[in-house]
Amino acid sequence: MTMTKRKVVVTRQLIDEAQILLDAKREELEVVQWQSEKPCDRSWLLDNAKDATGILVMLSDKVDEELLEAAGSQLKAIASFSVGTDHVDRDALRKRKIRLGYTPTCLTDAVADLTIMLILMAQRRGGESIAKVMKGEWPQMPWHPLLMTGPQIRGSTVGFLGFGRIAQASLQRLLPFGIKRVIYLTSKPGQLAKEDHFGLIKDCAIPIEPAQSADRLAKESDVVVVGCALTSSTKHLVSTDFFNKMKKLAVIVNIARGPVIDTDALVKALDEEQIFGAGLDVIENEPNIQADHPILKQPRCVLVPHIGSATIETREQMAMESVKNLLAGLTGEPMVNEVELSSVTETPKY
Amino acid sequence: MTMTKRKVVVTRQLIDEAQILLDAKREELEVVQWQSEKPCDRSWLLDNAKDATGILVMLSDKVDEELLEAAGSQLKAIASFSVGTDHVDRDALRKRKIRLGYTPTCLTDAVADLTIMLILMAQRRGGESIAKVMKGEWPQMPWHPLLMTGPQIRGSTVGFLGFGRIAQASLQRLLPFGIKRVIYLTSKPGQLAKEDHFGLIKDCAIPIEPAQSADRLAKESDVVVVGCALTSSTKHLVSTDFFNKMKKLAVIVNIARGPVIDTDALVKALDEEQIFGAGLDVIENEPNIQADHPILKQPRCVLVPHIGSATIETREQMAMESVKNLLAGLTGEPMVNEVELSSVTETPKY
Repeated sequence: MTMTKRKVVVTRQLIDEAQILLDAKREELEVVQWQSEKPCDRSWLLDNAKDATGILVMLSDKVDEELLEAAGSQLKAIASFSVGTDHVDRDALRKRKIRLGYTPTCLTDAVADLTIMLILMAQRRGGESIAKVMKGEWPQMPWHPLLMTGPQIRGSTVGFLGFGRIAQASLQRLLPFGIKRVIYLTSKPGQLAKEDHFGLIKDCAIPIEPAQSADRLAKESDVVVVGCALTSSTKHLVSTDFFNKMKKLAVIVNIARGPVIDTDALVKALDEEQIFGAGLDVIENEPNIQADHPILKQPRCVLVPHIGSATIETREQMAMESVKNLLAGLTGEPMVNEVELSSVTETPKY
Repeated sequence: MTMTKRKVVVTRQLIDEAQILLDAKREELEVVQWQSEKPCDRSWLLDNAKDATGILVMLSDKVDEELLEAAGSQLKAIASFSVGTDHVDRDALRKRKIRLGYTPTCLTDAVADLTIMLILMAQRRGGESIAKVMKGEWPQMPWHPLLMTGPQIRGSTVGFLGFGRIAQASLQRLLPFGIKRVIYLTSKPGQLAKEDHFGLIKDCAIPIEPAQSADRLAKESDVVVVGCALTSSTKHLVSTDFFNKMKKLAVIVNIARGPVIDTDALVKALDEEQIFGAGLDVIENEPNIQADHPILKQPRCVLVPHIGSATIETREQMAMESVKNLLAGLTGEPMVNEVELSSVTETPKY
């Protein structure tokens, strides 16, 4: 008697150990995997989803009614290689009782590291410096005491818009740079942060306090770190009003979601020297940023292409967790991280 | 009865408080100051040095027999706005018993901050990322799991070539990034570092150990920080042999002096993917780096124009200390930092 193998569909070649773990299951599972380096073709996915028990998807693969219909009623689990799940129709999953796995926790270090890089690049005029050297201007830069100087981080007040795990991991890294004070704004202004992920809030040599308002945070910070979720109330939270209240030598860094900062207002603030500089991992309308985009004309702004989680280790871990979530979804075991579809939860940030 | 005012010559306009401090002395001193933003003209300096009791100079002003002769035997002090004193003929000062002030300590924070920026830029492909965005390539970068990934710093072994104050200040900043081990090489391989500037060596949660050789340091490090003085034995200490022993995913950062790294060997190591990336604040033959220099063709190398100490706060402090050294030199009081000309000491690094 032969049992039919359960089918899983995977929309990517995976990395190293994750692929090995998946391949080790080929005796018991029919594994159908997209082979190209390009994002998975939609029609390929719809064709191959038929009869699948689990599907491992990337951010670029939409999980909607159409896909679930194409798969059929035996589908038990979606495992998304991502922190955000905006590409997944949760209601559609919920009504079919399909479980949803994702990979929210393993990128904290990678994003926090990048946050520090962007703060220092913004303060120390890193983008401007590199550009001058690349253009061959170094030989013609006569030394003077304030040549290419920026503000120093020691003694800074750092303001966090959003104070979750990544913000707190960034703060942990900033402490030995000699920052002197931390303020943060959450969805409940003035209230203590609920979670103290690294034991910093309770036990820190410098004051860490909730801000009463975005205005106060803008006025008092030398470094502003945008690390909040994108919601209707945080969209364009940082706009002309905010920039006008910031210090002339302050910098702003965005490692959250582009639309929290109003790009036009940022360009204006930089043009008018309302602030000293900016470091962005994300921006409105990414990735559709053409070479003539006005932000790219700002020497004091550094923009990198959403590489917050782009470390080899993090991506390997995300791949491993995705495969584990997929397998757990087939057998009914607990996933490493599962979205609670039954309750109404906010969309995670990344 | 009128007393002749003592004369001081200052080869720069100074910054804020330093200028104020100097101007406050104009009742008792004749202050002759170079007015232009350009470096001080040599013939102007020689003309005006005559009868000076003190001269405040920049790195670009040579202090030699010619200048001292032009000044005359009443000259008591040179105050250099610099950490390095390669531009000063110490023997010439010594035999005339002229004191030499300099500003070696106040830039530790600024250089250590930049060290962290360069490490992260090298690991996280910062230069390459910025360049892709500037060229308008972001819209055409299809996402895949290893897109723009680099090694993560958590778990790294960090190797310091030279383990003085700036290296130790950099280490202090690196600890919360989760590095797991530190090795260092000084002029006495295998021996414990003499000075523990921030109490890290004695009391650290991770091992901090002297390396037996440059080879071992190259082999074992995930991050190499060049922070040693330039001497005949450190010139090209990092060359092809060293790179060949490094890990393929390792990065190297130079915040010391350009010639410690053999640039041709670095270009070759990057070309052949012998190492992952590099971050340089200094380079051989700086500032004469033209736009067609081979290092600028390496996407995994970031080069900034020797901005290690370029923060507003540091430069202000250097200016203040220079003026204080100048005034102390006139009155015979202790300087903030004075070079011991009577003993044979090594040239300080910066």
